[in-house]
Amino acid sequence: MTDFHAWVSAHQLHFEDVLKHSLPAPELAPQRLHAAMRYSVLDGGKRVRPLLAFAAGELAEAERKRVDIAAAAVELIHAYSLVHDDMPCMDDDVLRRGKSTCHVEYDEATALLVGDSLQSLAFQLLAEHTLSDNPAGQLQMVRLLALASGSRGMAGGQAFDLASVGKQLALPELEFMHIHKTGALIRAAILLGAHCGNGLGAAQLDRLDHFGKCVGLAFQVVDDVLDAEADTATLGKTAGKDAERNKPTYVSLLGVAQAKKMAADLHAEAMESLSEFGAKAQRLRELADFIVIRKY
Amino acid sequence: MTDFHAWVSAHQLHFEDVLKHSLPAPELAPQRLHAAMRYSVLDGGKRVRPLLAFAAGELAEAERKRVDIAAAAVELIHAYSLVHDDMPCMDDDVLRRGKSTCHVEYDEATALLVGDSLQSLAFQLLAEHTLSDNPAGQLQMVRLLALASGSRGMAGGQAFDLASVGKQLALPELEFMHIHKTGALIRAAILLGAHCGNGLGAAQLDRLDHFGKCVGLAFQVVDDVLDAEADTATLGKTAGKDAERNKPTYVSLLGVAQAKKMAADLHAEAMESLSEFGAKAQRLRELADFIVIRKY
Repeated sequence: MTDFHAWVSAHQLHFEDVLKHSLPAPELAPQRLHAAMRYSVLDGGKRVRPLLAFAAGELAEAERKRVDIAAAAVELIHAYSLVHDDMPCMDDDVLRRGKSTCHVEYDEATALLVGDSLQSLAFQLLAEHTLSDNPAGQLQMVRLLALASGSRGMAGGQAFDLASVGKQLALPELEFMHIHKTGALIRAAILLGAHCGNGLGAAQLDRLDHFGKCVGLAFQVVDDVLDAEADTATLGKTAGKDAERNKPTYVSLLGVAQAKKMAADLHAEAMESLSEFGAKAQRLRELADFIVIRKY
Repeated sequence: MTDFHAWVSAHQLHFEDVLKHSLPAPELAPQRLHAAMRYSVLDGGKRVRPLLAFAAGELAEAERKRVDIAAAAVELIHAYSLVHDDMPCMDDDVLRRGKSTCHVEYDEATALLVGDSLQSLAFQLLAEHTLSDNPAGQLQMVRLLALASGSRGMAGGQAFDLASVGKQLALPELEFMHIHKTGALIRAAILLGAHCGNGLGAAQLDRLDHFGKCVGLAFQVVDDVLDAEADTATLGKTAGKDAERNKPTYVSLLGVAQAKKMAADLHAEAMESLSEFGAKAQRLRELADFIVIRKY
């Protein structure tokens, strides 16, 4: 088995190519919209969700060409959510991954249409390629991504997040928000990758889903810890930009030490969900480490 | 056969019920988002696209329960596009069908999430109900709606429209814009309704698609004529709000008389596409009349 970091780099590189071919060509009309879609999706991010899909696909012995498409669909949903989140009426961010955000580089109306079009494209990809030997199973993949994206998934989590600014949330409410806002799509990435294979039963898919739930939450807890500690170190303040914005975080509710313990516990629970899979789950385990034990 | 207006009223009434049951219940969390989704979809519009889906479903002898879902999916896409179009960064409209627009009644961030969530829900509906005896055919229905919605369909048409403000468009460019902006979803409504049945071959579906293309364009030409004439009559001006906004229209390019002739020609061409279907296409013919020969 190749080294984990080599696996990550190879898959990131390969996946960039998949995205380039999945997006409408820049010379196709309407050119400006297509250019803005490519600007917003390509050359950005660690591609955590696609990597999880690839790892789950390996576990399920899926053809990589199928997982390519499933991973692209999930990443397009993620990319659309970033474009819309950055808009002035949401988080009003001007920089993303060191580049101007879409509405700054283009304009707000274009950013709105970029997000809308990326969402349509995600479902187009899931419907127009063969991803499963069983078309009825493939329809379930479409449903799974739609549920994870919509008002009972990611977009619903955003709505909770908006409603929570300036409020005192309890821990279960904060967890509920994150399970939707970031967790739903992480779980969908893993399940869609696994569905591209054929062999997994319902109980095994449930284990994978529980792994995704734990990793998704741990990802957020670690984000909150890094935000708080980075600012403490670099700005000499005891809390980061989330605290400034008066947003509840795991650190604001639990303190840094307890938040770190929570991340470690979730990591252990995630690993436990994979125990039956043996060596096949190696990449998923490494990704869980990568997500939880990171410095940025 | 019942009277056309009775058929329209009965289907509009029934369809309102379908939408009510397809949208997330208002008591489900996040409640504000779900309330805003229901506000934006329910109790509004003539439901032209669903009526076309029902008429095409009757032609293809489809089960009405299946067409209900296909029609709801199309209408949710249409409703999301209205919510996003009305936002300040697009058309900045405060009234829609006599009610405050979503971002005025709620707020901009909620309107953004309402549109995003309605799009996800459309694809969820198409994937989670049985709409065809053939799941592979149902995947093609998902693809068809995704293509009609995205950057090569409706959203692409919006992008063209934005780019055309203040420009002198030639007739083919204006047609290209409308074929995407409103035509794509009208065609999808007809084809999805027809796909819920089983009997139609590719050539027949092509005829129906051509019918949809003609009706969709005629719809737009009539809109432009009504806009120009309503203002002429009520405001004493020779051109309406499109001209004020410096948007190209069929009337600004052709004049009222030629635009009326174009609508009549498209209507005749639409009827011609239905000739082989005989009495089964009666509702589609009546709808074409309804769309082209209207006063508002």
